[in-house]
Amino acid sequence: MPSASFSVTMRVELTDPRGVGAITTAVGDAGGVVTALDVVESRGASLVLDLTCNAVDESHAATLQAAVDQVSCARVRAMSDRTLLLHLGGTLSVVPRVPLKTRDDLSMVYTPGVARVSRAIAADPSAARNLTIKRNTVAVVTDGSAVLGLGNVGPAAALPVMEGKAVLFKRFADIDAWPVCLATQDTDEIVRVVECIAPVYGGINLEDIAAPRCFEVERRLRESLDVPVFHDDQHGTAVVVLAALMNSLRVVGKNMRDVRVTILGVGAAGAAITKLLIREGVGDVVAVDRQGILTVDTPGLDDVRREVVSHTNVGGRRGGLDEAIPGADVLIGVSGPNLVTEAHVKSLAADSIVFALANPDPEIDPVIARRHAAVVATGRSDEPNQINNVLVFPGLFRGLLNNGAKKITEDVEVAAAKALAAVVTRDELSPAYVVPTVFNPAVVPAVAAAVEEASRRST
Amino acid sequence: MPSASFSVTMRVELTDPRGVGAITTAVGDAGGVVTALDVVESRGASLVLDLTCNAVDESHAATLQAAVDQVSCARVRAMSDRTLLLHLGGTLSVVPRVPLKTRDDLSMVYTPGVARVSRAIAADPSAARNLTIKRNTVAVVTDGSAVLGLGNVGPAAALPVMEGKAVLFKRFADIDAWPVCLATQDTDEIVRVVECIAPVYGGINLEDIAAPRCFEVERRLRESLDVPVFHDDQHGTAVVVLAALMNSLRVVGKNMRDVRVTILGVGAAGAAITKLLIREGVGDVVAVDRQGILTVDTPGLDDVRREVVSHTNVGGRRGGLDEAIPGADVLIGVSGPNLVTEAHVKSLAADSIVFALANPDPEIDPVIARRHAAVVATGRSDEPNQINNVLVFPGLFRGLLNNGAKKITEDVEVAAAKALAAVVTRDELSPAYVVPTVFNPAVVPAVAAAVEEASRRST
Repeated sequence: MPSASFSVTMRVELTDPRGVGAITTAVGDAGGVVTALDVVESRGASLVLDLTCNAVDESHAATLQAAVDQVSCARVRAMSDRTLLLHLGGTLSVVPRVPLKTRDDLSMVYTPGVARVSRAIAADPSAARNLTIKRNTVAVVTDGSAVLGLGNVGPAAALPVMEGKAVLFKRFADIDAWPVCLATQDTDEIVRVVECIAPVYGGINLEDIAAPRCFEVERRLRESLDVPVFHDDQHGTAVVVLAALMNSLRVVGKNMRDVRVTILGVGAAGAAITKLLIREGVGDVVAVDRQGILTVDTPGLDDVRREVVSHTNVGGRRGGLDEAIPGADVLIGVSGPNLVTEAHVKSLAADSIVFALANPDPEIDPVIARRHAAVVATGRSDEPNQINNVLVFPGLFRGLLNNGAKKITEDVEVAAAKALAAVVTRDELSPAYVVPTVFNPAVVPAVAAAVEEASRRST
Repeated sequence: MPSASFSVTMRVELTDPRGVGAITTAVGDAGGVVTALDVVESRGASLVLDLTCNAVDESHAATLQAAVDQVSCARVRAMSDRTLLLHLGGTLSVVPRVPLKTRDDLSMVYTPGVARVSRAIAADPSAARNLTIKRNTVAVVTDGSAVLGLGNVGPAAALPVMEGKAVLFKRFADIDAWPVCLATQDTDEIVRVVECIAPVYGGINLEDIAAPRCFEVERRLRESLDVPVFHDDQHGTAVVVLAALMNSLRVVGKNMRDVRVTILGVGAAGAAITKLLIREGVGDVVAVDRQGILTVDTPGLDDVRREVVSHTNVGGRRGGLDEAIPGADVLIGVSGPNLVTEAHVKSLAADSIVFALANPDPEIDPVIARRHAAVVATGRSDEPNQINNVLVFPGLFRGLLNNGAKKITEDVEVAAAKALAAVVTRDELSPAYVVPTVFNPAVVPAVAAAVEEASRRST
């Protein structure tokens, strides 16, 4: 499908103004969607236009350009990618919260007045939360090793993603987030660097760090720092999944304690989902990895998978997807595209629930999954029930910062999931609406309030 | 002198409205300056007022409070410090430069569109300068070891100062600066942490790091990073001093090559000033430290002082200030308060120049220095000729970022100094005006343009 995320603008010269219809038709015939047409120059019979259209991907954009070029009176002078243009110069800015117009302002914002603020903090370090940006600041930390679906692209290429994440933090929860893209992928160094930069921040959001390194980095930072540390790829996903599962179970009238869940993919997200679901009472989880169903005999288990094994597969199943899926009530995919077949979904228990969360292409086409499952959710914005971490991390950090929390507990995560699920009222609940949409203004306040309350109780 | 940097607001209850005159008089009599009076509540005969006044320091503020309390119909309910209030919640905010209102925006700012930006940078790392915040971002890095005149107060207490510095970067040069306050004072760790966080930044401003650690940190980072690294306490000060000296010499009609300069204090600033002046042709510099005039025989010389010694004291002088000062044309103090006597200034050569830059209290009261010296400059905002680093670092980094510079050279520093000096025209030049004031709007564009040009030539 053509989408705004791949939107291009062509600058087109027309020697005949009647060619306008021909070029928009050419774009449409080639599968593009024209979204804007602006006249840049008009002189005599010739026209220069900016033609903006949505394409499917890069090669489709080239196809659209060729289609316009084929129109006899038209020539494409240049083509630009609107997403790249949007990111020109980056998507964040640092601005003063105070005026600086006069010498008096200068003497309070900076020297000599600021010395008194420093002395107040030196005398009472807890004053830093009131007298500095620490109160509202989150570091978005990555080593660039597992960026989106792109893999290990490094810290520079990860920066636009971390900037975007910071934009979301501000837009949804008025949090001042700052990208920290590390030129190292050494676990000890990552831990030490984050410890060293921590004084500026009231929270640490780890992002797009490859498994299993992400587990150790998070564990060690949680031990050493006095601010909450949250690996969003793990826990953000787990919290949204828990919320969506709570509501999905309500839709099909099943109970958390009675269902069997098969999880496909035991990376950062899969391990965290497994842990949270078991904590919330799911008795039978079967975790499936590239090597098949994880068992105590699976070779090469790391610490995290060993822990997953110790809490899952109570039925002692062996084999692969074909053994793990049939009869399960819930299938959660956090793996790769098209790994699940229609026959798999058909083999699930009655009133089954399928979350196919691989991005951008799910484990199974949701249209096909819906033929057999009662509730289907994906990570896609063009389908109902989008499981998106932005439903959690802004409100979660908002609540933690409001409370000046020093850590984050599983109680807090569960509270966030319950609050998120409750945004969908009993009347609204339906197979096509088990999680609210990302722009629902009720989400962040609800999650923040629940997290603030739960973190106050748990500290 | 009472100043805005120590401004307090008292909330005063009056049982008789005629007491208003009595309390403002009480503040004035106690040496305070009333700057605002706001009625908060008025009920019958009683009034509640917010009385804002400038004090000299903390104990003077207490004196003012006591003076108001002495007025029979008045009672001070609370007193608050306006500088602390200004810093509540910190002085910086991170804001999006792009809209995020619709799903289309989301798909371009963040996933899936942002993946294309990441891929573009992964394919061509130099694209990071265009497609991310790196183009306009400077890290303000400290270890909290030499903060203002406060000393080793640590990273948390340094944060409000670094925030203030970032406010200046934005206000004067539209640069997005971000505080990096490090919870380590180990040289190797500081270097490694800054290397690791560097991908996000187009420049590194080192700040308030104690000597001699600051020298090694800067040297090693300049070797390893491909963005300019600038320790402002060293080079920022040196550049302003050079500019001020160029203009001062014009005032007294002397030549850089002919003057003898005595520098008092061989810390970060003193070493950098010495180096830059010698590079600019001053033939005879005498550097004086706590141990007296630095000579090859001075015990315990570190690398930096050894280099200073190798280029200074061509006359082979020995002794202390009493031997170093008499007959010198220029005396530059970057040391401590009141170390220079009136007799010292009197003993300088005719038409002497004195820069007494210790903050907040200069090496000698400028009023006394002016009795004998032709040109006097200090770091104080309430005296003419304020030597303030804010005259340099904003324009300097603006020029470097505009040019995408990978390093900073002494040529660039000299160009900055010349541009700054030239902001004061020949007609304007006077003993009381050798450097422009910090709010002079011509300063940043002039310095930026000169730096951009010089850095282009030197790379």
